[in-house]
Amino acid sequence: QRCARRAIGTRWLLVLVSLCVCVCVCRAASPQEEEDSAMENIVTEKRAEESHRQDSADLLIFILLLTLTILTIWLFKHRRFRFLHETGLAMIYGLLVGVVLRYGIHMPRDGTNVILNCNVNASPATVLINVSGKFYEYTLKRVITSNGNKVDDMSDNENEMLHKVTFDPEVFFNILLPPIIFHAGYSLKRRHFFRNMGSILAYAFLGTVISAFIIGLLMYGTVTLMKHVGHLAGEFFFTDCLFFGAIVSATDPVTVLAIFHELQVDADLYALLFGESVLNDAVAVVLSSSIVAYQPAGDNSHTFEGMALLKSFGMFLGVFSGSFSLGVATGIVTFTKLRDFQLLETALFFLMSWSTFLLAEACGFTGVVAVLFCGITQAHYTFNNLSPESQDRTKQLFELLNFLAENFIFSYMGLTLFTFHNHVFNPMFIVGAFLAVFLGRAANIYPLSLLLNLGRRHKIRSNFQHMMMFAGLRGAMTFALSIRDTATYARQMMFSTTLLIVFFTVWICGGGTTQMLSCQRIRVGVDSDQDNSVTEGPERRSTKQESAWLFRIWYNFDHNYLKPILTHSGPPLTATLPPCCGPLARFLTSPQAYENEGQLKDDDSDLILTDDINLAYGDITVNTDASGVHTSSAGFASGMMSDDLDRELAYGDNEVVMRGTRLVLPMDDSEPPLKDPHF
Amino acid sequence: QRCARRAIGTRWLLVLVSLCVCVCVCRAASPQEEEDSAMENIVTEKRAEESHRQDSADLLIFILLLTLTILTIWLFKHRRFRFLHETGLAMIYGLLVGVVLRYGIHMPRDGTNVILNCNVNASPATVLINVSGKFYEYTLKRVITSNGNKVDDMSDNENEMLHKVTFDPEVFFNILLPPIIFHAGYSLKRRHFFRNMGSILAYAFLGTVISAFIIGLLMYGTVTLMKHVGHLAGEFFFTDCLFFGAIVSATDPVTVLAIFHELQVDADLYALLFGESVLNDAVAVVLSSSIVAYQPAGDNSHTFEGMALLKSFGMFLGVFSGSFSLGVATGIVTFTKLRDFQLLETALFFLMSWSTFLLAEACGFTGVVAVLFCGITQAHYTFNNLSPESQDRTKQLFELLNFLAENFIFSYMGLTLFTFHNHVFNPMFIVGAFLAVFLGRAANIYPLSLLLNLGRRHKIRSNFQHMMMFAGLRGAMTFALSIRDTATYARQMMFSTTLLIVFFTVWICGGGTTQMLSCQRIRVGVDSDQDNSVTEGPERRSTKQESAWLFRIWYNFDHNYLKPILTHSGPPLTATLPPCCGPLARFLTSPQAYENEGQLKDDDSDLILTDDINLAYGDITVNTDASGVHTSSAGFASGMMSDDLDRELAYGDNEVVMRGTRLVLPMDDSEPPLKDPHF
Repeated sequence: QRCARRAIGTRWLLVLVSLCVCVCVCRAASPQEEEDSAMENIVTEKRAEESHRQDSADLLIFILLLTLTILTIWLFKHRRFRFLHETGLAMIYGLLVGVVLRYGIHMPRDGTNVILNCNVNASPATVLINVSGKFYEYTLKRVITSNGNKVDDMSDNENEMLHKVTFDPEVFFNILLPPIIFHAGYSLKRRHFFRNMGSILAYAFLGTVISAFIIGLLMYGTVTLMKHVGHLAGEFFFTDCLFFGAIVSATDPVTVLAIFHELQVDADLYALLFGESVLNDAVAVVLSSSIVAYQPAGDNSHTFEGMALLKSFGMFLGVFSGSFSLGVATGIVTFTKLRDFQLLETALFFLMSWSTFLLAEACGFTGVVAVLFCGITQAHYTFNNLSPESQDRTKQLFELLNFLAENFIFSYMGLTLFTFHNHVFNPMFIVGAFLAVFLGRAANIYPLSLLLNLGRRHKIRSNFQHMMMFAGLRGAMTFALSIRDTATYARQMMFSTTLLIVFFTVWICGGGTTQMLSCQRIRVGVDSDQDNSVTEGPERRSTKQESAWLFRIWYNFDHNYLKPILTHSGPPLTATLPPCCGPLARFLTSPQAYENEGQLKDDDSDLILTDDINLAYGDITVNTDASGVHTSSAGFASGMMSDDLDRELAYGDNEVVMRGTRLVLPMDDSEPPLKDPHF
Repeated sequence: QRCARRAIGTRWLLVLVSLCVCVCVCRAASPQEEEDSAMENIVTEKRAEESHRQDSADLLIFILLLTLTILTIWLFKHRRFRFLHETGLAMIYGLLVGVVLRYGIHMPRDGTNVILNCNVNASPATVLINVSGKFYEYTLKRVITSNGNKVDDMSDNENEMLHKVTFDPEVFFNILLPPIIFHAGYSLKRRHFFRNMGSILAYAFLGTVISAFIIGLLMYGTVTLMKHVGHLAGEFFFTDCLFFGAIVSATDPVTVLAIFHELQVDADLYALLFGESVLNDAVAVVLSSSIVAYQPAGDNSHTFEGMALLKSFGMFLGVFSGSFSLGVATGIVTFTKLRDFQLLETALFFLMSWSTFLLAEACGFTGVVAVLFCGITQAHYTFNNLSPESQDRTKQLFELLNFLAENFIFSYMGLTLFTFHNHVFNPMFIVGAFLAVFLGRAANIYPLSLLLNLGRRHKIRSNFQHMMMFAGLRGAMTFALSIRDTATYARQMMFSTTLLIVFFTVWICGGGTTQMLSCQRIRVGVDSDQDNSVTEGPERRSTKQESAWLFRIWYNFDHNYLKPILTHSGPPLTATLPPCCGPLARFLTSPQAYENEGQLKDDDSDLILTDDINLAYGDITVNTDASGVHTSSAGFASGMMSDDLDRELAYGDNEVVMRGTRLVLPMDDSEPPLKDPHF
């Protein structure tokens, strides 16, 4: 039976590959079938139709690529083949199609560019061109900088198809990245995330900034050296180096995490890596945009300047906190009460997530960061308000969107290695960049781990550190940031190098994860939910103390006040607020919370009790906040309470809400094999 | 409790309305905050950023509109307020925002258009403009036809914002329509659809063509009259009239069907209306494109010509059958075997549906038609191959996409009434069009019903006919077809008139459905699934004979051969093929079918038995195929067999597949209130 399936799978792949090639060839062939007709109108109409067909065929190539990837992934999953992740695969297929498009098909550009000389001062957004009595409206697409040979070069070499297959880089930022980032935030495994929050924040914020600066400095050294040797054909400023450092500091260990999830690697390691990669995407975006904003600051631009750096830092903080609060705000705002109408609920949820992105962009903040925190907030609060059906729906929807967007980006990456027309591959720069990326990652992980271990009771062992070092893959975010602007020589060189870094890390580091795990003797097959109750040894007990003291206060506030106000779960406010606030509490508590109250006493009464006690916390002062320098002095007395806290974090958001209805959906039970490649 | 909810809902609406207005105002305010900076580079960058912000804000308006619509729908549903459907509501909100954008905010166009005179012959796709040493690349956007005053007019009157809020019409065709159409095909209630297939095909094909020609002729009369009176300011050819007839013949009774579904109106009436509206969309698309293709046929174009008509008809048949077979082919091809990985399955399903559309467009067929038949085929075959989880996922996904796309289109319709810049409202033409639409619908329904009743055992009663007449709303498809080309005077007049027709029918006819139902004394509250087993009277029994003889043969072929080959359900081929074909049968049968075999005997043995007998059908010769003229002579003997057939059609595709796993998902039970607005 399995054999038959395999045969079918392979047959399928063949059919699809040939279809893919067919489409490519068809696209090349079709433009030649021009018909001779006298009327100009018909020609225009025909051309529009032709172009429409071409566009469809172009999109079709990508869709077939994705389909191909999906089928191959299925084959791989079927055979438990772990060397190549779906993203790596998507890149390979993209690469192949790129080669076909580049070298297989030669097609001249149909209408050669017309160069008009024009004596207007500013460049208008739209231009009307009077071609023999008829007006054609043209819209500004891009600026081609200076040197005349570039323009000739472009209109000659570049063929129409390669041009068409190239997307507007903003597509990545505005359409493909948001679902990926949102999904990442939405699926943060909250228990382990919160338990390691201090360390994660340290790696993501401090670590990324360190890494960006180290890489920037090393690259500046490389570039200076290149200038001396004469290998540099254009300008490359210090800010460019810093920008490069910022964009390649965003890690994206999709591949590694997928394998971790499959092999059930230690949950803390997983949380550290996942949390770091999710947050450092946000950091890198804001960092790079602050650097860009800093760039043309004064007249003597492109040099290092203390004041401007401070300004940049202020901007970084401003944009980040703005985006953060916007994301959290909209995340909270979406507490839907449309429980009876699942479709409306899901639609609203989807729209609110997207509008967060747009709102942030419209306000001049960073949409990606807003969407990330919107996702985290929604997972924490709004998700609880959804009906169980909608919870499933939204999860599945974002999972699908994430899957499609991710694979699309990676296959586009493969494609673009051959179809992008301004590649600048400079061996020296590439070697320097690989070295810098390696050293930057090392400067992030090892020193910070050392510092964090001072504060952590459950130390980050050296094999974990090596694994984190190894798992610093670069992915979608790095690519999207680097393709956003490829106007100057420096940016083109950066883009080409970034592409190579992504390829290398995804294929080599991603592919070698299993080997690395066994080499570092990291335990696999740990069921993160079971070890909660089974292995109750001293080591296990101590991990619970990791949660920062600050966090515990916040947690109690959140559990007792925010959750009851914002969601239908948690204890009703009337139980948590002092009696004097009775009327206010009654006003703010949702009817469902009251309905829950009876059942609450049933199976969660201990939670409420300990939560009340928790307010008096203070003996637990393990402090591992972002700076990571405070030492610890933990009291062991509160073992039972943190047990509850832990349990709450683990189950709270799934079980507590369902109290009223308690539906154990068969869906949830049957899909562990591929519930989410990110877990 | 309900009161509190209401209060919350109302508060929400207020917040959102104010937010919407805020965004509008912000958009108006922001462009003024230009900063003075010496460097041109910064100016360009700033402008790009500004434009990016603007785009985000524009999109945000639409998203807030949708959100507003959703919240209001929820309020309406909550209060069981049936006068206004969500689509009508979306239009009203769109209208309001359109008014605000048009009259509330005055903003001059920022960069005035530069008119360049250029001595090239053809209009190139891209133009490089040399502005003082720098090259700017411009892409062709549209052709502004001739008369010089138009150009001035445009650059003066039209403000930037209205311009930005206008979408490329192709967006509707390539992005928004496909999910709507696919969902329609995917959710055809198959039992009632197949039972009334003959009538549905007659109404959809014959009826739409009749209606198109009647409307076309009447409009030609109107236009000729207008020419005589001097009310016509531009050219209006006969082919334009025919085109108008084609586009307004596509009915889209979303509103009516939603109410039907809610009130549980007679399932046959529902099937007739739904089936007709789904198929006539496809007919209208192909018809209109054939007319456009016919238009510039000879030198003496725009006149009626027998030969060209025939050619057009041939083209119609060609495109339709091409799209049909492509859709069916890809629908069949997607028989996935990835049951273990739901995410991959859903993704593949989604991609294949979309690639059908693109493939058809790339081949020069009609994507909409292909997608429709792909949906029907997938619902029939592929759906059975999906795991139960994926069945749920795909259904929900397409439901959501359909919901969003539909509401977006309708709110855009409202918006465009005020923001479209070339409206031509001609009272005479509008009155003529309303009359023509009314008469065209009448000429479709009444004569065809008369003819069909000759062949139908279960007559289409006159109150059903009146209801169908009344329910001929025009919607998304009509709008998308009419906005696609608004270059000429005739097309602009058509577009404006179409908009009014859509508004009128959706608000008046859609809103009056409940009244009309009670006025025509049509039974409501009929549970279509229950009446299957309960009301087994003579009238009921006779409806089963409605299925066409041809269809029965096809059904048996499908059940015995196609389903076993293409899906995992149905009897294994080894049971249905003659013994001599044993090896072939074994090769083609999927392993699951064998697994099913044991259980098949359990609860479906009677089905298989009667199916074997069914092959000998022949005494049932009720013939209601598309031409609808053959008379009937039905044998009553086969009551039991058609009973089974009926049951199979009703339950087969849901129950038979689940035999192996038989999961009764709680999801399905709990969502009748809004499972699907189309049912």
